[in-house]
Amino acid sequence: MPDFEKLYQKLVDTSRETAVLSSIQMQLEWDQETYMPSSSIDLRSKQLEMLAHFVHKSATSPKFKKLLGSLVDLKHGTYASSDFNHEQLANLREWRRDYLRTAKLPASFVRKFANTTSHALHAWSEAKKASRFKLFLPHLDKIIQLNRKKADLLGYHDHPYNALLDLYEPEMTITELTPIFAKLKLALMNLLREIQTKPVPHTDFLLKHYPPQQQMVFAHLLLKAMGFPPERSRLDLSMHPFCSGTPLDLRMTTHVHHENPMANFFAVLHEGGHGLYCLGRPAERFGEPLSESVSLGVDESQSRFWETIIGHSLPFWRNFYPLLQEEFPDQLGGIDLESFHRAINYVRPSFIRIHADEVTYSLHIIVRFELEKAFIEGNLKPKELPEAWNEKMREYLGIVPSKDSEGCLQDIHWAMGMMGYFPTYTLGNLYAAQLFQTLQKTFPDWETKIAHGDLSFLREWLKEKVHKYGRRYPPKELMHKATGQPLSEQPYIAYLENKYRSLYDL
Amino acid sequence: MPDFEKLYQKLVDTSRETAVLSSIQMQLEWDQETYMPSSSIDLRSKQLEMLAHFVHKSATSPKFKKLLGSLVDLKHGTYASSDFNHEQLANLREWRRDYLRTAKLPASFVRKFANTTSHALHAWSEAKKASRFKLFLPHLDKIIQLNRKKADLLGYHDHPYNALLDLYEPEMTITELTPIFAKLKLALMNLLREIQTKPVPHTDFLLKHYPPQQQMVFAHLLLKAMGFPPERSRLDLSMHPFCSGTPLDLRMTTHVHHENPMANFFAVLHEGGHGLYCLGRPAERFGEPLSESVSLGVDESQSRFWETIIGHSLPFWRNFYPLLQEEFPDQLGGIDLESFHRAINYVRPSFIRIHADEVTYSLHIIVRFELEKAFIEGNLKPKELPEAWNEKMREYLGIVPSKDSEGCLQDIHWAMGMMGYFPTYTLGNLYAAQLFQTLQKTFPDWETKIAHGDLSFLREWLKEKVHKYGRRYPPKELMHKATGQPLSEQPYIAYLENKYRSLYDL
Repeated sequence: MPDFEKLYQKLVDTSRETAVLSSIQMQLEWDQETYMPSSSIDLRSKQLEMLAHFVHKSATSPKFKKLLGSLVDLKHGTYASSDFNHEQLANLREWRRDYLRTAKLPASFVRKFANTTSHALHAWSEAKKASRFKLFLPHLDKIIQLNRKKADLLGYHDHPYNALLDLYEPEMTITELTPIFAKLKLALMNLLREIQTKPVPHTDFLLKHYPPQQQMVFAHLLLKAMGFPPERSRLDLSMHPFCSGTPLDLRMTTHVHHENPMANFFAVLHEGGHGLYCLGRPAERFGEPLSESVSLGVDESQSRFWETIIGHSLPFWRNFYPLLQEEFPDQLGGIDLESFHRAINYVRPSFIRIHADEVTYSLHIIVRFELEKAFIEGNLKPKELPEAWNEKMREYLGIVPSKDSEGCLQDIHWAMGMMGYFPTYTLGNLYAAQLFQTLQKTFPDWETKIAHGDLSFLREWLKEKVHKYGRRYPPKELMHKATGQPLSEQPYIAYLENKYRSLYDL
Repeated sequence: MPDFEKLYQKLVDTSRETAVLSSIQMQLEWDQETYMPSSSIDLRSKQLEMLAHFVHKSATSPKFKKLLGSLVDLKHGTYASSDFNHEQLANLREWRRDYLRTAKLPASFVRKFANTTSHALHAWSEAKKASRFKLFLPHLDKIIQLNRKKADLLGYHDHPYNALLDLYEPEMTITELTPIFAKLKLALMNLLREIQTKPVPHTDFLLKHYPPQQQMVFAHLLLKAMGFPPERSRLDLSMHPFCSGTPLDLRMTTHVHHENPMANFFAVLHEGGHGLYCLGRPAERFGEPLSESVSLGVDESQSRFWETIIGHSLPFWRNFYPLLQEEFPDQLGGIDLESFHRAINYVRPSFIRIHADEVTYSLHIIVRFELEKAFIEGNLKPKELPEAWNEKMREYLGIVPSKDSEGCLQDIHWAMGMMGYFPTYTLGNLYAAQLFQTLQKTFPDWETKIAHGDLSFLREWLKEKVHKYGRRYPPKELMHKATGQPLSEQPYIAYLENKYRSLYDL
């Protein structure tokens, strides 16, 4: 009779070695986006390539496979011992899940994929700069082919898109998503149309000069209020904000544009949401699935919760707006709270997804979701993309980009080879609204608390409901446990209707 | 007949892989000293331990050994082909040198050494804090034993200390050092005694409040004048200033104390000297000895050249002092150049090596050199250190520390296991003075050029004479070629006599 506890501990140790290597990758990527001198890019690529090799080798080593296989049947998923506790079972389940996925993709395919996307990224960057879709077209074609091949290699039920979606949002299916997105689309289009009949709020005071140094004072004040301990986290600058690291070494970044301070503060709240999710996971379980992010959708629910639901709310700014005015008396001294609140919630169709407001954001996502689904099905040819894109933009948002750089070339995701990723952005919003609905019931006085500057109950509640579990439950199950409801578009629609009917006096 | 060119190229590629891994180590160490949140220290140790393992594995891999052995006889050093050019021969010579040294130390010894110094470092830190030598004594004892063992394993002629010295300053011997250091000691003691009969310069204006932000403006101005391209280098803050990186990604740090601005500026010039040496080596030879620093002594000659010989000189401040006054008008507006120059060259015996002036600095080094030599010879027992230390301080510098934290516990080197390292600090000063003597002959108008803000001729001359060669020649040979003279204490003594007789009106 094998000593299962001992084997399990060895498996944990082996997995931790892989995680140490991955954490080095993260550190180098962080440095590349923050402080690395530009001429170091070639060496950095070589460093990352070498680490990727080591990580892959470690995660698929015969030693790891043998240990894992001795504790759980790799083919059928049955466990070797009935003495494992629930946490051990969850770790074994997720290790198996990761291992099988990695093992299904032959090294030759992984190399070809990496090579293709490396060239595609370069071509995309040039194509976007020149706004010439043709430069990107042959690469997009290859990427679609490779993603269909990837789906075949991974295996799927019903629809090849499910295999891709599952990479980013485990167990999510197109069958579940399609009706939800369809209902959401209709509701958003209707709400948008109504809003567009109303007068446009003043926003000019947000476009004055806000000195970067003062912006950063306020950014740090936000993070402090969210509860970030400086000995475990930091905030730096990068072109595109992001969050990476471990629960004991969290690295967040933001961007500073001196004429758009809110882009900075909302980036801080967004990355702060990701950051609290990371800090809330058990640091002592480093290297185990139980300390990892469960899905992109759930991760995004945390960032959108803080950025939009809390960070764009009136109670939040009841507390913070006077502090913001204090930091920027010349720019905001004469603007009252309600005008500020209307300005930051200004809804209008626009071309660029990452600048979209809450109401139009998911319409941008649905455009992409429908197009990449059609790509994978073979119902849309790559060369038809610009026309199809513009047609959907016209239909859902009522505007048509005049150039592809503001249309189908704007996002990096497809060039990076990622299809099935976009829906997780909207899933994040849906989950966030479901969490918010539950929170309101749990804390009927939430508005008063937040208006008095108390954010700790939010952090602690999210930690208890979501963060502390890591990958203990699959994402849908985790969210069902946290909210008592299955995935639904209704809470998000209700939240938006409630907020914007009041704001726009509909 | 083997294809030697092809084998050689394979060897370069293999060596480059090791260098990529080492460069990751450097990056993580840089991050640890600059931006890493404190709670990440355990993970960082694990990351570095893993990388050290990979580096060692790569540098001693059977593949590397086989390739190297096919091009140069590992035992006798004879080359397999007469077609190698001089640069290839230099690379092969240095690869063999590194390989043999690494191979001579068994893995078990390396582990024991690492383990011992890890504990010693901790104990030293506690001992220094409490100023209790006894806490460090048992660890010092072990470290001396291990260094003697190390010398035996590495092998040596004449004296075991030579084996250790050779680790930091290839081909330097105690036979050569001893008479040089003896003559230097006498000359410095005499000069110091004479200076001490003279009035003390005013220095109070250097101890006023100098706002850190303004200090950094001036620090960057210095680096710009030295010729650092921002796309290849950067300056950050750390507790102890250092310089690391590659010719395409140079990382320098400094420290800022608001009441001691010169400590910041001299650190910038010092690390800048190391930095220019790095930038001046051939980036395209990354991974080859020809792109590496040839010795600690030569590296230190570059930092001391810029920090002391140039950076403490009158012509240098003729150009920069008006700019410094402009940045700090309240602190320096009423102080003339000559008073400032006397203040930054104030000579007085003090306890702490790293704060010592040019005249007393090498006396601190000689104290340590004589003591560690006696340790290795067995002529000094570890427990006798405090007394021996204080006795030498009294004799050479005329002062006795009242506590060991300001005496024999001040340096980290022995706790890190490094014996044979200290002399390279003084070698750096000797080499710098020899280079300076040559420079003065080459550019008779050097003072005028520098006083007009031209530093580029210094940078270019040092690059041509020293930097570009990497490890092409052993350090002594390189310096002989650059200066036309063998190693000697005379140029340094002459430089100090000349400077301080004039400054102190002796």
